[in-house]
Amino acid sequence: MASTNTSGGTPIRVGILGASGYTGAELVRMLLRHPNVTIAALTAERQAGKPIAEVFPHLAGYGLPDLVKIDALDWNALDFIFCALPHGTTQEVIAGLPSHLKVVDLSADFRLTDPAEYAVWYGHEHRATDLQKEVVYGLTEFNRAAVATARVVANPGCYPTSSLLPLLPLLSKGLIESDRIVIDAKSGVSGAGRDAKQANLFCEVSEGFAAYGVGHHRHMPEIEQELRGVAGRPVTVSFTPHLVPMNRGMMATIYVRMTDGVTVDDLRAALAARYADEPFVGVTPAGVNPATRHVRASNHALIGVTADRAPGCAILVSVIDNLVKGASGQAIQNMNVMMGFGETTGIDQAPLFP
Amino acid sequence: MASTNTSGGTPIRVGILGASGYTGAELVRMLLRHPNVTIAALTAERQAGKPIAEVFPHLAGYGLPDLVKIDALDWNALDFIFCALPHGTTQEVIAGLPSHLKVVDLSADFRLTDPAEYAVWYGHEHRATDLQKEVVYGLTEFNRAAVATARVVANPGCYPTSSLLPLLPLLSKGLIESDRIVIDAKSGVSGAGRDAKQANLFCEVSEGFAAYGVGHHRHMPEIEQELRGVAGRPVTVSFTPHLVPMNRGMMATIYVRMTDGVTVDDLRAALAARYADEPFVGVTPAGVNPATRHVRASNHALIGVTADRAPGCAILVSVIDNLVKGASGQAIQNMNVMMGFGETTGIDQAPLFP
Amino acid sequence: MASTNTSGGTPIRVGILGASGYTGAELVRMLLRHPNVTIAALTAERQAGKPIAEVFPHLAGYGLPDLVKIDALDWNALDFIFCALPHGTTQEVIAGLPSHLKVVDLSADFRLTDPAEYAVWYGHEHRATDLQKEVVYGLTEFNRAAVATARVVANPGCYPTSSLLPLLPLLSKGLIESDRIVIDAKSGVSGAGRDAKQANLFCEVSEGFAAYGVGHHRHMPEIEQELRGVAGRPVTVSFTPHLVPMNRGMMATIYVRMTDGVTVDDLRAALAARYADEPFVGVTPAGVNPATRHVRASNHALIGVTADRAPGCAILVSVIDNLVKGASGQAIQNMNVMMGFGETTGIDQAPLFP
Amino acid sequence: MASTNTSGGTPIRVGILGASGYTGAELVRMLLRHPNVTIAALTAERQAGKPIAEVFPHLAGYGLPDLVKIDALDWNALDFIFCALPHGTTQEVIAGLPSHLKVVDLSADFRLTDPAEYAVWYGHEHRATDLQKEVVYGLTEFNRAAVATARVVANPGCYPTSSLLPLLPLLSKGLIESDRIVIDAKSGVSGAGRDAKQANLFCEVSEGFAAYGVGHHRHMPEIEQELRGVAGRPVTVSFTPHLVPMNRGMMATIYVRMTDGVTVDDLRAALAARYADEPFVGVTPAGVNPATRHVRASNHALIGVTADRAPGCAILVSVIDNLVKGASGQAIQNMNVMMGFGETTGIDQAPLFP
Repeated sequence: MASTNTSGGTPIRVGILGASGYTGAELVRMLLRHPNVTIAALTAERQAGKPIAEVFPHLAGYGLPDLVKIDALDWNALDFIFCALPHGTTQEVIAGLPSHLKVVDLSADFRLTDPAEYAVWYGHEHRATDLQKEVVYGLTEFNRAAVATARVVANPGCYPTSSLLPLLPLLSKGLIESDRIVIDAKSGVSGAGRDAKQANLFCEVSEGFAAYGVGHHRHMPEIEQELRGVAGRPVTVSFTPHLVPMNRGMMATIYVRMTDGVTVDDLRAALAARYADEPFVGVTPAGVNPATRHVRASNHALIGVTADRAPGCAILVSVIDNLVKGASGQAIQNMNVMMGFGETTGIDQAPLFP
Repeated sequence: MASTNTSGGTPIRVGILGASGYTGAELVRMLLRHPNVTIAALTAERQAGKPIAEVFPHLAGYGLPDLVKIDALDWNALDFIFCALPHGTTQEVIAGLPSHLKVVDLSADFRLTDPAEYAVWYGHEHRATDLQKEVVYGLTEFNRAAVATARVVANPGCYPTSSLLPLLPLLSKGLIESDRIVIDAKSGVSGAGRDAKQANLFCEVSEGFAAYGVGHHRHMPEIEQELRGVAGRPVTVSFTPHLVPMNRGMMATIYVRMTDGVTVDDLRAALAARYADEPFVGVTPAGVNPATRHVRASNHALIGVTADRAPGCAILVSVIDNLVKGASGQAIQNMNVMMGFGETTGIDQAPLFP
Repeated sequence: MASTNTSGGTPIRVGILGASGYTGAELVRMLLRHPNVTIAALTAERQAGKPIAEVFPHLAGYGLPDLVKIDALDWNALDFIFCALPHGTTQEVIAGLPSHLKVVDLSADFRLTDPAEYAVWYGHEHRATDLQKEVVYGLTEFNRAAVATARVVANPGCYPTSSLLPLLPLLSKGLIESDRIVIDAKSGVSGAGRDAKQANLFCEVSEGFAAYGVGHHRHMPEIEQELRGVAGRPVTVSFTPHLVPMNRGMMATIYVRMTDGVTVDDLRAALAARYADEPFVGVTPAGVNPATRHVRASNHALIGVTADRAPGCAILVSVIDNLVKGASGQAIQNMNVMMGFGETTGIDQAPLFP
Repeated sequence: MASTNTSGGTPIRVGILGASGYTGAELVRMLLRHPNVTIAALTAERQAGKPIAEVFPHLAGYGLPDLVKIDALDWNALDFIFCALPHGTTQEVIAGLPSHLKVVDLSADFRLTDPAEYAVWYGHEHRATDLQKEVVYGLTEFNRAAVATARVVANPGCYPTSSLLPLLPLLSKGLIESDRIVIDAKSGVSGAGRDAKQANLFCEVSEGFAAYGVGHHRHMPEIEQELRGVAGRPVTVSFTPHLVPMNRGMMATIYVRMTDGVTVDDLRAALAARYADEPFVGVTPAGVNPATRHVRASNHALIGVTADRAPGCAILVSVIDNLVKGASGQAIQNMNVMMGFGETTGIDQAPLFP
């Protein structure tokens, strides 16, 4: 099978740190089609020395570089870094990178701006607080200008992405109350990563549904930080993540109270107006709610708005693909903005169904 | 393959109306093991004349009666009826049954006690309002005495069962507020029935997650009716059902506000005390939440209680098998109570995992 | 959400007949990215008048034409037709098309070259036997020259594609015996189409595995016709299709006897040589067998070769995505050849995993 | 939730060695309903000290003994042992058991009667060859008398069970040829066990289909040993196992050549006659093939027989639940025979569908 590289212009040389996980594979899949990019390096500490096809047979035949250790990289041969390393180990790696490199970090290490809050949720002091100050939070639709000039972007978590897209415009316009927001979230299993854990075995997950991290999931403070930013006061959400027996997809079902005099049509109109010019975020018509299959394998987000029977309340249904808009797709979207490429370049695939 | 009937004493003769659906098959599966029961008649209007094995090959070899039309039944040859007919057609069938027959109705036709409310949600006048007055709502754990003397029992819906088991004890003891209860519910696909609908095809459901009936599902008024009964005032819940790509299983994730001074330990203790002597309802220890796989194919219900980060709030996680405790198992439990059999007879299987 | 059309040069105007099925949706998904194509018309008899997004919500936002009836089409506004209609109705539609239109037919109507054989397997006389004579069988890798000059191409079935790719080179070179070939094939559920049938409901398929059409599946004569062509004598295969609880993917496990003196390394080397320059067909190294996840959502085919313990025998494992290389992807590949576009244009996505 | 033990007579005291795996959990599930058995001990080396409910939450509430190490057992407090330990470690454990204990071993350690063959397939000398001589191979339907008097029974593998049930009667009657038998087998994922392995993660398995152990799976010699026994000459089968994205279920699709003058009706009649009085093995009518969902969670086996288009050939479709008739159910069936209990006691559940 012959390689099917495509390219255009002088592509930038991209390195992917942590290429043996699912988000790494997704980055490769999409970047292979990106005309402005050459995949120049792939790292995986424990798999170093192997061809990528041994770790991901579906990526055979593309002439990709072999997996190496981070220490073996020549930073001068690279222009851009995607960092898909585990939480905790990431911060020192990125802090040690030469300054000519732009970076999108897919870990949680730089998402919380307050080091004290980081320490509470992650159990240790942050080890790169200086760098943290310059990192830009990359929910692209809300930070486009800052992303464009950033050197390091913290890519949002999947739960925050699916929760913030519907909530931020409504809260910033004062259309909903900031207290008693309930976010009931559901994720495909790929969000749990590729490490061999009994809890993620097929037989433990298939034909079942489970909540996890009830009351204390680490994506909570990230959501609250961003909501606080637009609400102008502390926001505490009720948030419960669940595991769905599917590979990919994420839904947040969000219960909100509207401020006095506001209707669900107002909410829907506000979201539709906010996202009218956004290439990746859509609002479904009244009476229609999105399902995860409508965005599968794409960088799309879809939002539905419905009246709750509880007076003055509304139900928001928000869906993304957790590995694309919730991780690698949004990371490429941020790279496109940082590098001045077309924002949809390489991530404009239509969803896959069935 | 030889038949494997088991029996003991003089069994009652049971008829199952609507035996070609999933709840019908579940009734047969469990009743085959029930020592006090003989399956004497099975009806299915469109499949009449066929052996049950043609409709459900897994039920071949048990010497079961062929499928017939309801009109062809000899009511005098039967002692007990399970009615698993579609909503709407059920009420006239049951109203027309001879009075020597005891009945558990698995449809929604007799669950709402107020005919006006029924008319609002089902779009037509109730056609058996006299009978409705004597029907007992069969959430067994809360109506055991009335079920024991009832002639006709309305078997609860699956969503109400999973929602009411955690909520009723807490509300009746005044431990939680009756307003702003959010019930985010998730069901396996068998709840949608066996009719050929495009929306329930494997390719439409698998690898996806969807909300449905947002803001207007017919199980809402049933939940609210029962909550009202213990709260002593009208209760309006926020309720959203979702479809999980699995055959069976149901979870309700419930967000509640505690009344002043109440803690989550109080909630857990109250539930544990309430269900200590119940054979089918359990409460998980602090820090542990139940998953649907813990009750699969059993009549069990499990409830977990966790503190919400939102001050004064708690998260209840409630799981059942929608086809067993949520339908056919609870129906047999009600029959056992109505007939004076041991309450767990025939439905005491341990859960199936994996 | 804004539309994300891409194009280049003067695109041809493509019509898709039968756009409401899964193969129709796949054609749209891939053609949206094809720079030489504009999707100019979509038909669906029963859904005519609806926007495509009502039938396939994942295709909203692309500015696609509404669904219409075939009778409503202006053939002069089209250059190329993909015909994804049901078997049987297709032949008269295509026979009636104006001759300026080039066509790839995804149905089985023109795959069998012998009208007598067609009549045996489909139960009626072929109604376009004249046209049949000029139609080219579009297993692209084996008919490239003829496809390039054809006006109408019969796109191969999914089972024949996955079976013929490994068998044709081995049989034509005399490396395997033509008798007693066993093809045990397994398909994802999308191959069964989108019609509402009880047998394809989620609950009937999930958590199960089934054979179907044992001994008499209509893809048999198609496989045998092509094998006969290279063997130079009649070939009768043992062929059993099975249904796997997954949306897409197909595997053929093929048991063959090698001719005297031939080894499995010879088989592997012959296949590797045959496909060395093919962009879509790969051969796995000794000791490695392909799985369907290695080609998911791509136009790739992979073949593995292993020694059987039965002396002189070998086991071939062949995988494709039944909707892509087994249907819509190969159809576009054929269009590319017919129109002189780059053969991989629009279908060069890397596989999707997980 | 109260315990729901059932019992009758003076039950025997059963110990399960290796209770933390899937077959262990299945033994517990079924033995809880067995009136002649008390579950007296459960071992799990790495989980020793934990309640079983911590390892298998679905088994909470039954008053089961905590998990202990094998060394901690008092053999005098036990009457019967199920050994569900990993292959290789089992033989010395069983060889060291006091002789008053009867044993069913679910591992592969005592299935191969020839120590030389064992050494070839398992890579080390057998460490209990004396004991091996007295062990009885427990395919119950074919060894009932020997099982009844055995002290140690080797429970057959799942692939051999599904393959031998259709093949043994046909081969022993000379209705099929013993050469060129092709067994294409498919298993649910539970057959791969509960150890945390990347290959068995949900995301690696779901939405995919894969062959494994092609040409060299360890169940091959077990199948061939038993076929040799009835054929009276060496038999080499072509055998390929595959992994289906489902928890449980197994199908063997078997391709055979009939001896001269034999028809498929002869095959079907021979199988039907052979199994007419067997409680757990059935033969489907002409034109009907069994699917795994027809035997799910039951001890049933079903066999279908169909004419192959290849002249003189037939296709056998055989299904079981790999964890029940393929493991724990058949183990209990053997215990019932060894102890003189009713053979179907505790394992007479109807299949679970959906």
